[in-house]
Amino acid sequence: MSEVLDLGFARLDLAREARQGLPEVVYGPGKTVEQISGIVTGLLKHNTGPVLVTRIEAETAEAVMTRLDPGVHDAETRGPEPYDGQPHGPATYDAEARLLYWRPSPAGDFCLTVVAAGTSDRPVAAEAAAVAAAVGLDTTAIHDVGVAGLDRILQVRDRLQAADALIVVAGMEGALASVVGGLVRAPVVAVPVSTGYGASLEGVTALLAMHASCAAGVTVVNIDSGFSAAMAVHRIAQSLANTQRRVNTPGGAR
Amino acid sequence: MSEVLDLGFARLDLAREARQGLPEVVYGPGKTVEQISGIVTGLLKHNTGPVLVTRIEAETAEAVMTRLDPGVHDAETRGPEPYDGQPHGPATYDAEARLLYWRPSPAGDFCLTVVAAGTSDRPVAAEAAAVAAAVGLDTTAIHDVGVAGLDRILQVRDRLQAADALIVVAGMEGALASVVGGLVRAPVVAVPVSTGYGASLEGVTALLAMHASCAAGVTVVNIDSGFSAAMAVHRIAQSLANTQRRVNTPGGAR
Amino acid sequence: MSEVLDLGFARLDLAREARQGLPEVVYGPGKTVEQISGIVTGLLKHNTGPVLVTRIEAETAEAVMTRLDPGVHDAETRGPEPYDGQPHGPATYDAEARLLYWRPSPAGDFCLTVVAAGTSDRPVAAEAAAVAAAVGLDTTAIHDVGVAGLDRILQVRDRLQAADALIVVAGMEGALASVVGGLVRAPVVAVPVSTGYGASLEGVTALLAMHASCAAGVTVVNIDSGFSAAMAVHRIAQSLANTQRRVNTPGGAR
Amino acid sequence: MSEVLDLGFARLDLAREARQGLPEVVYGPGKTVEQISGIVTGLLKHNTGPVLVTRIEAETAEAVMTRLDPGVHDAETRGPEPYDGQPHGPATYDAEARLLYWRPSPAGDFCLTVVAAGTSDRPVAAEAAAVAAAVGLDTTAIHDVGVAGLDRILQVRDRLQAADALIVVAGMEGALASVVGGLVRAPVVAVPVSTGYGASLEGVTALLAMHASCAAGVTVVNIDSGFSAAMAVHRIAQSLANTQRRVNTPGGAR
Amino acid sequence: MSEVLDLGFARLDLAREARQGLPEVVYGPGKTVEQISGIVTGLLKHNTGPVLVTRIEAETAEAVMTRLDPGVHDAETRGPEPYDGQPHGPATYDAEARLLYWRPSPAGDFCLTVVAAGTSDRPVAAEAAAVAAAVGLDTTAIHDVGVAGLDRILQVRDRLQAADALIVVAGMEGALASVVGGLVRAPVVAVPVSTGYGASLEGVTALLAMHASCAAGVTVVNIDSGFSAAMAVHRIAQSLANTQRRVNTPGGAR
Amino acid sequence: MSEVLDLGFARLDLAREARQGLPEVVYGPGKTVEQISGIVTGLLKHNTGPVLVTRIEAETAEAVMTRLDPGVHDAETRGPEPYDGQPHGPATYDAEARLLYWRPSPAGDFCLTVVAAGTSDRPVAAEAAAVAAAVGLDTTAIHDVGVAGLDRILQVRDRLQAADALIVVAGMEGALASVVGGLVRAPVVAVPVSTGYGASLEGVTALLAMHASCAAGVTVVNIDSGFSAAMAVHRIAQSLANTQRRVNTPGGAR
Amino acid sequence: MSEVLDLGFARLDLAREARQGLPEVVYGPGKTVEQISGIVTGLLKHNTGPVLVTRIEAETAEAVMTRLDPGVHDAETRGPEPYDGQPHGPATYDAEARLLYWRPSPAGDFCLTVVAAGTSDRPVAAEAAAVAAAVGLDTTAIHDVGVAGLDRILQVRDRLQAADALIVVAGMEGALASVVGGLVRAPVVAVPVSTGYGASLEGVTALLAMHASCAAGVTVVNIDSGFSAAMAVHRIAQSLANTQRRVNTPGGAR
Amino acid sequence: MSEVLDLGFARLDLAREARQGLPEVVYGPGKTVEQISGIVTGLLKHNTGPVLVTRIEAETAEAVMTRLDPGVHDAETRGPEPYDGQPHGPATYDAEARLLYWRPSPAGDFCLTVVAAGTSDRPVAAEAAAVAAAVGLDTTAIHDVGVAGLDRILQVRDRLQAADALIVVAGMEGALASVVGGLVRAPVVAVPVSTGYGASLEGVTALLAMHASCAAGVTVVNIDSGFSAAMAVHRIAQSLANTQRRVNTPGGAR
Repeated sequence: MSEVLDLGFARLDLAREARQGLPEVVYGPGKTVEQISGIVTGLLKHNTGPVLVTRIEAETAEAVMTRLDPGVHDAETRGPEPYDGQPHGPATYDAEARLLYWRPSPAGDFCLTVVAAGTSDRPVAAEAAAVAAAVGLDTTAIHDVGVAGLDRILQVRDRLQAADALIVVAGMEGALASVVGGLVRAPVVAVPVSTGYGASLEGVTALLAMHASCAAGVTVVNIDSGFSAAMAVHRIAQSLANTQRRVNTPGGAR
Repeated sequence: MSEVLDLGFARLDLAREARQGLPEVVYGPGKTVEQISGIVTGLLKHNTGPVLVTRIEAETAEAVMTRLDPGVHDAETRGPEPYDGQPHGPATYDAEARLLYWRPSPAGDFCLTVVAAGTSDRPVAAEAAAVAAAVGLDTTAIHDVGVAGLDRILQVRDRLQAADALIVVAGMEGALASVVGGLVRAPVVAVPVSTGYGASLEGVTALLAMHASCAAGVTVVNIDSGFSAAMAVHRIAQSLANTQRRVNTPGGAR
Repeated sequence: MSEVLDLGFARLDLAREARQGLPEVVYGPGKTVEQISGIVTGLLKHNTGPVLVTRIEAETAEAVMTRLDPGVHDAETRGPEPYDGQPHGPATYDAEARLLYWRPSPAGDFCLTVVAAGTSDRPVAAEAAAVAAAVGLDTTAIHDVGVAGLDRILQVRDRLQAADALIVVAGMEGALASVVGGLVRAPVVAVPVSTGYGASLEGVTALLAMHASCAAGVTVVNIDSGFSAAMAVHRIAQSLANTQRRVNTPGGAR
Repeated sequence: MSEVLDLGFARLDLAREARQGLPEVVYGPGKTVEQISGIVTGLLKHNTGPVLVTRIEAETAEAVMTRLDPGVHDAETRGPEPYDGQPHGPATYDAEARLLYWRPSPAGDFCLTVVAAGTSDRPVAAEAAAVAAAVGLDTTAIHDVGVAGLDRILQVRDRLQAADALIVVAGMEGALASVVGGLVRAPVVAVPVSTGYGASLEGVTALLAMHASCAAGVTVVNIDSGFSAAMAVHRIAQSLANTQRRVNTPGGAR
Repeated sequence: MSEVLDLGFARLDLAREARQGLPEVVYGPGKTVEQISGIVTGLLKHNTGPVLVTRIEAETAEAVMTRLDPGVHDAETRGPEPYDGQPHGPATYDAEARLLYWRPSPAGDFCLTVVAAGTSDRPVAAEAAAVAAAVGLDTTAIHDVGVAGLDRILQVRDRLQAADALIVVAGMEGALASVVGGLVRAPVVAVPVSTGYGASLEGVTALLAMHASCAAGVTVVNIDSGFSAAMAVHRIAQSLANTQRRVNTPGGAR
Repeated sequence: MSEVLDLGFARLDLAREARQGLPEVVYGPGKTVEQISGIVTGLLKHNTGPVLVTRIEAETAEAVMTRLDPGVHDAETRGPEPYDGQPHGPATYDAEARLLYWRPSPAGDFCLTVVAAGTSDRPVAAEAAAVAAAVGLDTTAIHDVGVAGLDRILQVRDRLQAADALIVVAGMEGALASVVGGLVRAPVVAVPVSTGYGASLEGVTALLAMHASCAAGVTVVNIDSGFSAAMAVHRIAQSLANTQRRVNTPGGAR
Repeated sequence: MSEVLDLGFARLDLAREARQGLPEVVYGPGKTVEQISGIVTGLLKHNTGPVLVTRIEAETAEAVMTRLDPGVHDAETRGPEPYDGQPHGPATYDAEARLLYWRPSPAGDFCLTVVAAGTSDRPVAAEAAAVAAAVGLDTTAIHDVGVAGLDRILQVRDRLQAADALIVVAGMEGALASVVGGLVRAPVVAVPVSTGYGASLEGVTALLAMHASCAAGVTVVNIDSGFSAAMAVHRIAQSLANTQRRVNTPGGAR
Repeated sequence: MSEVLDLGFARLDLAREARQGLPEVVYGPGKTVEQISGIVTGLLKHNTGPVLVTRIEAETAEAVMTRLDPGVHDAETRGPEPYDGQPHGPATYDAEARLLYWRPSPAGDFCLTVVAAGTSDRPVAAEAAAVAAAVGLDTTAIHDVGVAGLDRILQVRDRLQAADALIVVAGMEGALASVVGGLVRAPVVAVPVSTGYGASLEGVTALLAMHASCAAGVTVVNIDSGFSAAMAVHRIAQSLANTQRRVNTPGGAR
């Protein structure tokens, strides 16, 4: 099978699924309904895992779903009709996360907790959680635990410590990443958010502050990129599954 | 009395003590022993309150003290000999704070707590505490309560809440300001510190993060300026003393 | 009483009033009428002090008021009807300050003066003044005293010196903070404003300049944050109340 | 046991080992030989895991080792003599990594590969590798595989893909993080390095470029912080141990 | 002939064609249909080479074409009718490149390859390719070869190495410039693109990263400036023509 | 006369004196004693006006003076001996201004006042004043009139208003430029100074603040460039001379 | 007469005309028609010189003119009818400069030349020229002399050298300021323009480049501020007029 | 032959010469004499073209030369003795360019002119010229033609126009790149220089200004990188040679 599918307006990296455990993910902004539909069709046909379109607005998502599954207009009841002779499941659109996806992976053993500081961090946290769930992470979310009311964090301390990995979503000064990073031993991926005004510098302040964090071993992804944080945890979960398999296999070579 | 004393190389604002409750404070860097000695002599003579020289290294301080109090070489035993016919007390040099001062005010009723995140924040915290004590604030310090070990802050929660005002000194991501700001009801003055490397941007990240803080009503002073934070609290203490006096005086006009 | 009220889309920190002397303040932008109404209802019910919504546009405010007090459409005549079985006073909307509030505190003894440099600084100054008044500060405002016409400042010198605390609101180069800081002995909280163009860098220049100010002890809050400046002074005023209580209590331990 | 050990000049967070799986790590710069020795002694006594001092120059390290193990001057032959009645192993100093440590953990099952772009990235890569090895990761390093000579990367493709996690160390434009991130499915932690001149902006360009990376799920730590990258992978490896334990425990609740 | 044509609202540098081998190019934004038409008419009349208008939207382009060639409304069939008594060929509008041009040069011997990293880099790549073709470069384009899928680049390695010059168009972290720069010996002109979000800083990150590139001899033009990259290669191709002429001229002095 | 003098290591623009009213000025840093001596000799020989070397340290200046006037070692007594057969006056070195000059112009009618905010602004103010005096401006200086003590400025208000032009030298927040700009009607050239720390950003804050100044018509030169400010006023004074000449010439066309 | 006129929404500095030779100038953006009309009326009544409103769009200007001169709707024919009992001349609106003004000063002896680099610099150049003309400077403009076509500048060299002062308006890299600054001896005020894209950083690049200019004595005003440049030259012209008067008056004291 | 030579401390990309027409170039800073000697020996042995070490100080260069050619201490007389059994020519050290090289290519047909604005740009220009000459470009240099004295540029106009390519080296505002770019039709590579102070921002201002240049088709390399500019022109010269060969070969395929 050719590893690159040339659609004229885009060349799909079909080998990514085999190489990295997940098909290419489609970044929605700037793409037309036709382009998105074409890419999704190609990925559904030539790959077998989940297919995701991120940052896609409701109307565009609706148009893409209609185009791909013409007989099915309602997201709730959209069935497993084949498209293009290919049996794939129905599309799901998560409006808060602005995520459109097909063939989500079933939830596995790896437990991810997404923690968000304030109300305005919710959309980014929603993207992180929706992407993570779609690629098979067992995901839960905790909202509104900004550090200015420390007791709210302390109340969920046990839940934070039980997670296999955490995504911390915070705008403004991003202090939640340091606080959570100091409470748990699991991996912490911090997502700076572009909320706030003035000295927040559209998320740059939170990004820098998270890097300067006094909690060792906290890592950071790009501003507002709930998607990238979910992918980072997906890498961790894949790696741990792989390591477990290897360790549990006597004489297993890597 | 003329309100400006012209020393040739500097013009002293003698009216500042009457106008703002404290004589001019001398910023040490870039000034010679002769210049500092001349300014201090002028202030000791024409004003009556504490006289402070900030950011002055040990050798310079020693040279200034020798010049002004020639019979007294040892800071510990330096007595209240008059200089220039003016009875002023001995000089004190605080090496960690790099502060040299004369005629400190006795501690008043106003309780200031200086809180520092880590070891490298100590010099700035020391400056804040030393200046505050010299101008009459009842000052205590709490060190090493960075947010990555939240329990250390929670252990001193009561002490934080008992203060009339707090100065929070923190480098790196400066998250301590938000956490303390959320725990207490008293005024909080945050001092960003230029420690850290890389994304700390020599204190700029902490400064921006403290401004973007999710804890309402936290104010910020310049990077590394323990002095300015102490001055800010001095203003508060003066104002409260004044207000109390006014309120307790029946029919008292402002 | 549980200290956190979970509204699904937000978790309210009900303990903040007891801990910090003021209920949580609602930041309007990005919240729907339903969300604001829900939060306000929760705060009115479970807390007893003033409830504030900041940066809320007129239409949203009107919709929230209608939703909460359905029988009362006109702000002027809105009476003390109970909502949700809870006797709370009428809502007030201050259009210039973009502030919506309930149960304002009566003005206390602490006198705040808000000083603004130019015409374009008025909205920020209005927010500072309205928030301050709503939380019980005895607030007055002085406008249009930019430093380019120094006589305008000198004319109000006595009024500036009579205040217990001052908020200085200035965009462009923010020089007013230094000038006022040098004239008074009371606390000065500077608010940089994002007006101006080019080298003003949307308020960043004023923020930096206020920090670099040659007037000692001036503190700074985030760009355009009249709210945060008012909260800073509220902390000071609370501290006064606290010290008075302590002083007036024979043998009172802290 | 008290969870905080107060040494006067520092307060040690003794509970960190239990909470996060590793004792506090000592950041060397700005600390005296006495301070470092005191902290290390406290950690060796009150904790049981590896004790690390980072960014410590050779002379300081030698002085600390001499102070703690006075009978042993030579790092190679330093034996397991007890210090302070506490049987702890000899100190090891890694000059390239500027790391001084005691009681390293034995290498576990988790395989980390540290990849460095060029010669000037070696010291940061050395810190990452040395810290990782000291905390029990099975660590190997690959140097000089900058993207300008793509074949060098392709030659080690299999080794990259065999790792359980990768740390990518790169200065200048940091492109290696994107390239490696696209080749492997395991977690990739990128460390920007402050080498280069001009447009490299002391590592800020690499930091920003790594965040803007087109390879999904790559995370980033602070400039030059090999330490922080190693800690991030330590968190991942711990998470593996934790999930294994959970999976292997029938009916085990978290 | 006067070298400057004064149109009132603009002064055309008519000598540029003789001096630099190409007439002035018209930058569309901010100019009215009348102004563009006037300038184009002047250039068509007084110069003999290609006339280009860049960054011109479809409606404006259509209006200009209608104004200049009133009898011809359809771009496909627009013939070589003279305008203003001047026999010039029909206008062509390239919508993706937002380029409007007249009298394109025939393709010469110099082979340019335009390489673009991702879908969102296409408009800038299109501008580079369209301008290059219009001024006589033998231009081909390769899309969607971002470094996160390295095999896509390796597949086109031969094509890259066959080019006489390359333009690399990449947003985000711009790593493609380093990779291509390391694969070929021909000149590489890198164009940073303002796509991406957060840490991409609207193309500034890519611009800095391209400058910090580890591939020697890669040069950079302004963000999004496909036009400027094409002009840079035009200069190279002209230089070739010039050296050929010189070499082929026995005894030819420069 | 050839307009360019080629010294091998530098090409002197001899026509500058005729074109701009002043010979080239030599920027000292990075030049050897030999280079400076050579350039000065050339300028003294081929031009007739003042010859200036700026930012030159005492030792270098002394070496240059010795080299050019070998019989004269003492600046005070250095006479009008000819060098290189050319009768030129003695050299003068101003240590505070770090200026070395020959053939200063006599003071003319144009009155310049240099105003400096604080002690650390003195060296820059000294450069401005020394250069201005050397090129014939009637120069006086006022020091230590920072805006934090407004009365010091008000005391010299009349002197400020009597000047034909003013140079305002200020670091930190640079507010003095706005205040002086608002008090006088004459031209005000502001010089930001790189003193201060933290938020002063090495003079960038003052530069931006001076540009954002609310006082209309204040112009700004580069950070620390007392020289450039003096040159700006020299241009103004020359313009005066020129207009006087024109006005006094009946029927004089320009 | 009181020096401050309080309009409620603004306090006019009526003394500015006496102090600085020009009434306050009204900055249009953010002000309502009512506010502008009120301020203008106050200034027309209480001052005698030109009254200017800058950056005012056509519709607002028309509305203000209608409000102040209700009988006159057409700008061309608007006569000298009195408003508010005050005989003032008609308003003039310059659309390109976005300037509305009353009572312009007659052109004096001082010759200003405004030089602009490109087409997109025209609006800023227009503001400079219109304001300058309105306050009595004898103003001419030269457009489209960007340095990429050097001959265009050389053609106007004589005109540049004849000016008493020059304003150079340039966006992009702002090189025109250096070139003109090196050609003339008169004062040069440079205005950076926010045109350009990418590396132009909305005028910040031009601002910095103009400060770093190799042409000595060029001064700079804020980005896009044609107004401020005109005011700077107005200060120069006033000063020269004053100096001439003083010099021509035997025994005249300043 | 293996394409990578592993020296332990570095892995040499031996294939670069075949791939890109030039062996790897050694960047001196941070490398020991031993490391440089080892790399150079490897390159001399396994490649056949010029071997260059850039940014190497005189003492290090001398030590490397002594180590590699022990019998030859004097650069002038160092003969073609073989080292390591390998007949390679003597080393040459260019102190101004800080370049050490072996086996320079003979000068070819391609004429490069290096143009520098001022005295402080010389070292960067020297590096560009020395590297270019070493790799076989026919290189000449023109110094001190900054735009503030335009006539100096105009005098060399013909020489500029005769070059096959130009490197323009300029610090401060970098305007020379625009001016030269507008005068010639050949490729122009601009090098920003980190000279200047204040607003020069260590070369960043020049870099941005050169990108914003109004002269189309000028390309830019990293700050101070004379080396990179020379490599860029080397790419151009190689490409043109290649194209000529192809064009002159009847039926020649690429």
